[in-house]
Amino acid sequence: MKQETEKLPILRVTKQGTSKIEDMVVKESPITIFLNDQELVTLLCSPTNLRYLVAGFLSSEGLIKSRGDIKEILIDDRRGVVRVQTEEDKEFATEFIFKRFITSGCGRGASFYSAADVQGQAKIESQVAISALEVFSLVKQFQQYSKIYRITHGVHSAALSDVKSILVFAEDIGRHNAIDKIFGQCLLEDIPTNDRIILTSGRISSEILLKVAKRNIPVIISKSAPTYLGVRLADDLGITLIGFVRGKRMNAYANDWRIDHCDDVTRKE
Amino acid sequence: MKQETEKLPILRVTKQGTSKIEDMVVKESPITIFLNDQELVTLLCSPTNLRYLVAGFLSSEGLIKSRGDIKEILIDDRRGVVRVQTEEDKEFATEFIFKRFITSGCGRGASFYSAADVQGQAKIESQVAISALEVFSLVKQFQQYSKIYRITHGVHSAALSDVKSILVFAEDIGRHNAIDKIFGQCLLEDIPTNDRIILTSGRISSEILLKVAKRNIPVIISKSAPTYLGVRLADDLGITLIGFVRGKRMNAYANDWRIDHCDDVTRKE
Repeated sequence: MKQETEKLPILRVTKQGTSKIEDMVVKESPITIFLNDQELVTLLCSPTNLRYLVAGFLSSEGLIKSRGDIKEILIDDRRGVVRVQTEEDKEFATEFIFKRFITSGCGRGASFYSAADVQGQAKIESQVAISALEVFSLVKQFQQYSKIYRITHGVHSAALSDVKSILVFAEDIGRHNAIDKIFGQCLLEDIPTNDRIILTSGRISSEILLKVAKRNIPVIISKSAPTYLGVRLADDLGITLIGFVRGKRMNAYANDWRIDHCDDVTRKE
Repeated sequence: MKQETEKLPILRVTKQGTSKIEDMVVKESPITIFLNDQELVTLLCSPTNLRYLVAGFLSSEGLIKSRGDIKEILIDDRRGVVRVQTEEDKEFATEFIFKRFITSGCGRGASFYSAADVQGQAKIESQVAISALEVFSLVKQFQQYSKIYRITHGVHSAALSDVKSILVFAEDIGRHNAIDKIFGQCLLEDIPTNDRIILTSGRISSEILLKVAKRNIPVIISKSAPTYLGVRLADDLGITLIGFVRGKRMNAYANDWRIDHCDDVTRKE
């Protein structure tokens, strides 16, 4: 936990009165990415698994396609710098890079909504099926993995799973970063994402949905709410979007044909 | 509510079984800002109070300083475009603009952490005092204002208050946007922010803290967790940071000298 959290003195007020105690809060660090010696962006993140974060970020932004594109990732923890060299050693025109980064994380170009990424994105045809009970079980496992959250309540978490169990898990102060860490690990360790499921603690906005679609993932599950644009994109791209999973309740917002045996939930109670 | 939410058919699964029902989800719209006819950025936001959002965003980014800097704000709701003309009609060099926008929302330049904005930021000396009971009462009022949240659970909220009551309130799918809407309204309607309090539903990261510091606000209150960097900045900049306000509990992470009569909380129970 030492890498992810810091202890500090706080004043706690409860019905029983006030007390000076020590509490744990989550770390937040700026990490600057250099791509082929060009400064690209600074992310605010939880300073763990930076290789995964950076690989996932570059891949989400379309700057790398596969593990083979990466020649080297050098991490300087102390300075908060990660240097990535790609195989082709291509220069990314400053404007191109900036254009791309404006359009992600904090917002995307309007053009994108009507065309660009979405048009290039094939509809996901995976025939994977999941039952409501499997969803409930996965979310329960997911919560048990969330160690930093339980201590600090200050991070988001994300996971890749099949219908039975969690395969890859990540936590980060940013919901985008947590998902990028998952996909970075998948990329660097050749973990397939087809027919698999993404779990997230965060809300499902259009950007999260598109990150998941790019990896050809047919199901996304969240404890939180989706946005209307997220639901519309899930609908169009053939992704099953499940939200508000709490105990034995859930809402399916798009492509609910992958959810089978729904009645199990009553039968097995 | 019509502007902020959309109704759609969902599959709801509960212990009682599955049912097709209609549910409300929150809207998410891309809004592209043009500043003096230059395309600046596209924000994903809740499409309400766009004047406030855009004014707050430009001011948070340091591109405008006061209401007087704005000649005109033209909103084209249908196209999702907001055009702002400033009095000086200055051109913002593309690189300058991009530099700035990379460094906000999705992340900030590392330089900033050591110096830049923080050095330029005077320590906040406001002698405003607030009791724990006033904090609890404000957060209760704050929650009562959160109408879209109660319907959709898909938005963040923010408010400006004095120690007694909410003065300005905003909701948005983005926690940064919600706060920018508050400060945009303050800027456009000459609402002072000195000696006042910001309430937010979201986590207090370094960027949120700095947004608040720029407006000379001495107290920030959240239902959620802060990050360690947020706490350190609050400490340095003289801001009282209160987190995890839930019922009659709260944690003060920095500058707790503004919190008085803490014992009230036990006496009045």
